[in-house]
Amino acid sequence: MPQTLRNDRFLRALRREPVDCTPVWLMRQAGRYLPEYRASRAKAGSFLAMAKNPELACEVTLQPLERFDLDAAILFSDILTIPDAMGLGLYFVDGEGPKFERPLRDAASIAKLGVPDMETELRYVTDAVRVIRRELDGRVPLIGFSGSPWTLACYMVEGGGSKAFSIIKAMAHNDPKALHALLSVNTDAVIAYLAAQRAAGAQALQVFDTWGGVLSPAMYREFSLPYLTRIARELERGEGPERTPLIVFGRGNAAYLEDLADSGAEGVGVDWLIELGEAAQRTGGKVALQGNLDPTTLYGSPDAIRSEVRRALDSYRDGNGGSREGHVFNLGHGMSPDMDPEHVRVLVDEVHAHSRR
Amino acid sequence: MPQTLRNDRFLRALRREPVDCTPVWLMRQAGRYLPEYRASRAKAGSFLAMAKNPELACEVTLQPLERFDLDAAILFSDILTIPDAMGLGLYFVDGEGPKFERPLRDAASIAKLGVPDMETELRYVTDAVRVIRRELDGRVPLIGFSGSPWTLACYMVEGGGSKAFSIIKAMAHNDPKALHALLSVNTDAVIAYLAAQRAAGAQALQVFDTWGGVLSPAMYREFSLPYLTRIARELERGEGPERTPLIVFGRGNAAYLEDLADSGAEGVGVDWLIELGEAAQRTGGKVALQGNLDPTTLYGSPDAIRSEVRRALDSYRDGNGGSREGHVFNLGHGMSPDMDPEHVRVLVDEVHAHSRR
Repeated sequence: MPQTLRNDRFLRALRREPVDCTPVWLMRQAGRYLPEYRASRAKAGSFLAMAKNPELACEVTLQPLERFDLDAAILFSDILTIPDAMGLGLYFVDGEGPKFERPLRDAASIAKLGVPDMETELRYVTDAVRVIRRELDGRVPLIGFSGSPWTLACYMVEGGGSKAFSIIKAMAHNDPKALHALLSVNTDAVIAYLAAQRAAGAQALQVFDTWGGVLSPAMYREFSLPYLTRIARELERGEGPERTPLIVFGRGNAAYLEDLADSGAEGVGVDWLIELGEAAQRTGGKVALQGNLDPTTLYGSPDAIRSEVRRALDSYRDGNGGSREGHVFNLGHGMSPDMDPEHVRVLVDEVHAHSRR
Repeated sequence: MPQTLRNDRFLRALRREPVDCTPVWLMRQAGRYLPEYRASRAKAGSFLAMAKNPELACEVTLQPLERFDLDAAILFSDILTIPDAMGLGLYFVDGEGPKFERPLRDAASIAKLGVPDMETELRYVTDAVRVIRRELDGRVPLIGFSGSPWTLACYMVEGGGSKAFSIIKAMAHNDPKALHALLSVNTDAVIAYLAAQRAAGAQALQVFDTWGGVLSPAMYREFSLPYLTRIARELERGEGPERTPLIVFGRGNAAYLEDLADSGAEGVGVDWLIELGEAAQRTGGKVALQGNLDPTTLYGSPDAIRSEVRRALDSYRDGNGGSREGHVFNLGHGMSPDMDPEHVRVLVDEVHAHSRR
C-alpha cells in the first residue's frame, strides 16, 4: 500500500458517483458452495481454524474472485470474533451453527466484559486483512465487517442461534439496563474492531444486523437502531473521497430505511422483502443501497436468474430517478452450500451486462 | 344450536361494532404450556391422535377457557389436515415439527391432487367442531381455521418446515405453472374446508398465512395474495350481522396491509413487526385488526406484560381515530410450551381492564 485500485466501481457506487456498470459482490461469496473452499477447509480442519489463520483466510477470500467477475472481496472471518475474544468460548457444532460455552445471563457477567485488545486478541483478523490486501494487489477493494451490537448480543445471551430469541427478549423486558450495558460494550468493541480493520487496510466496512428484524418497532428503536447509529457517527473513517464507506446491512430492516439513511452510514444493505425501487424512493439518494435478490433465486434456471437480476436492477433505477448510480448489487442474505457456482457466474455477468446497456 | 351467545365481544369487534372492552384470544392458547393439555396429550398418545379424536380435541380446546377470561375458543386441530387428507402422509418427529412422507416435487404429482371429501376424509374435524359447539354452549364463539394455500404448499413441497424454503422457491422460478396448479387446488380445498367448518358450527374463520412473509413482494403478489383474496371473495359465509367473519393472519404481512384490507376479509391478523396504530391508519377502518403482541413478551415480568398490553391497546386506539372499536387483541404469533400460564392470566386480564377504562 498504497496500491492503485484497478476496479473502483464498488467504492464509486457507495459514493453515488457514476459507474460504467453496477458493481456486484455476494454475501458469503467465499463459502461451502465452492469445491476449492471445501478443500481449504478440509486442510484447515475446521471453520474456526481457517478463520484464525491469516494465510488460509486470504486463500478462501480470493477464491470467488478467481472464478467470477466480482467487484469486491470480503474478509473471510466469523461474525462472532468479538464475543469470542471477550472470553465467551465460541465453538461450532456441525449443522447447528455457532455456540458459546459461557452465554451471558445476568448483569454481573455483562459487567465483567471489556473491549478486546485489537493488537493481540483480534490480531489474527487484522493480519488477515493485511495479507489479503497484499494478495489482492489493487484488483478490487476489500470489505471488512462486524456483527452489529444487537446481533452479537443475541448470540451472546442466547448462547447460539435461536428461533424465538426468547432469552434476550426476556432480558429486554426484565433487565433492560443490563442489556443496554451489553449493547454499549459491544458498540465500543465494534467501533474499535472496524477501526482496526480499516487501519490494516479494509477499504469499506459492513455491519451485519442480521437479527434486528426480529424486534418490534419499539424494541428495534431501543435496542438496535441507536447502536447502529452510534457506530455510523463515531467510527472515524476519513473525509471526502478518501472516506472509508460504511454499509449497514440488516435483515427485516425495510420499516426503518429512513432512519438508516439518516444514521450517518454511506450505504444501507436490504433484504429481499422490499422492492429496491421503493427503498430508493424512501431513502431519496441520501445513501447508496446494496441488495437485494432473494438468495434462493440461485436455485432457479439461468434464464430465471437473469430475469430476476434485470428486475432488481431496473426496480432500483426506476425508484432512483432513472439512474443506476448508488446501487451495489448483492443478495438479500448470504449464499448456501448447495448453490451451483455456475449460477453465480450467470448472476454476476448479468448484473454487469444489463446495467451497461 | 341455535344457542344464545353469552359473550359476543369477539364477533362485535370483527364487525367493528362498539364493545364494553377489547376482546382477546391467543394463538395456540390450547397448548403445551398448560399441564392439563400435556395430560390430555399423554392420554391420547400423540398430537395427531388428539387432533383426530373429536372428544379429546374438544377437551383441549376448552382447557384455556377454564383458566382465563378469553373471548373466543379456537378449534384444536393441525394446520396440515388438508394435505394429510390429500394423501401426503403427515407425521411428526419430536422437536422437528410436521413432515410429509410423500412431498410434492413435480407437476405430475401435483396434477394427481384433488380436494378431499369433507364428509369422510375430514369428518373428524367437523365432528370436533360440532362437539366443541355443544360443550361451549354459547359461552364464547368458536373459531375454525385453515392454513393458507401458500403455507400449505410450503410444507407439501418442502416436505416439512424450512428455513430458506429453497425447494418451493426453486419451483416458483422453474415451474411456476406447477406451483400455481398446487395453489389452485389448495385454494379450492381451503374454501371447502372452511365452508364445512362453518356448516358444522364455526362462528368465525381464520386463515394462517404463516409463511407468506418469506416471499419477495413480487412473489407474494403472485403466489400468496391472490389465493388469500380468492378465499375471502369466494367463501360463502352469509350476509349482514349473520355473516361469519373471516380473519386473514400472516406473519410478515405488514407491507401488504392495504391489499389485505381490500381482500374481502373481515379481519386482518398482524405480527409484532408493525405498530398497531400504523396498521390501523393504513387499513383505515376497512377491516378489524387482530394482534399483535410479541409472544416473547410473556417471558417478561407481570409489570412488563401489563405495560406492553397497554401500549398495544393504546397504539391501536391512537391510529384508529381515538376508538378501540375493531380491535381483537392477540399475540403476533403462537404461544410456546415454556410460557407461564400465570403470565397469560396477567395479559388477558389487563386487556380487559385497560380497555374498559
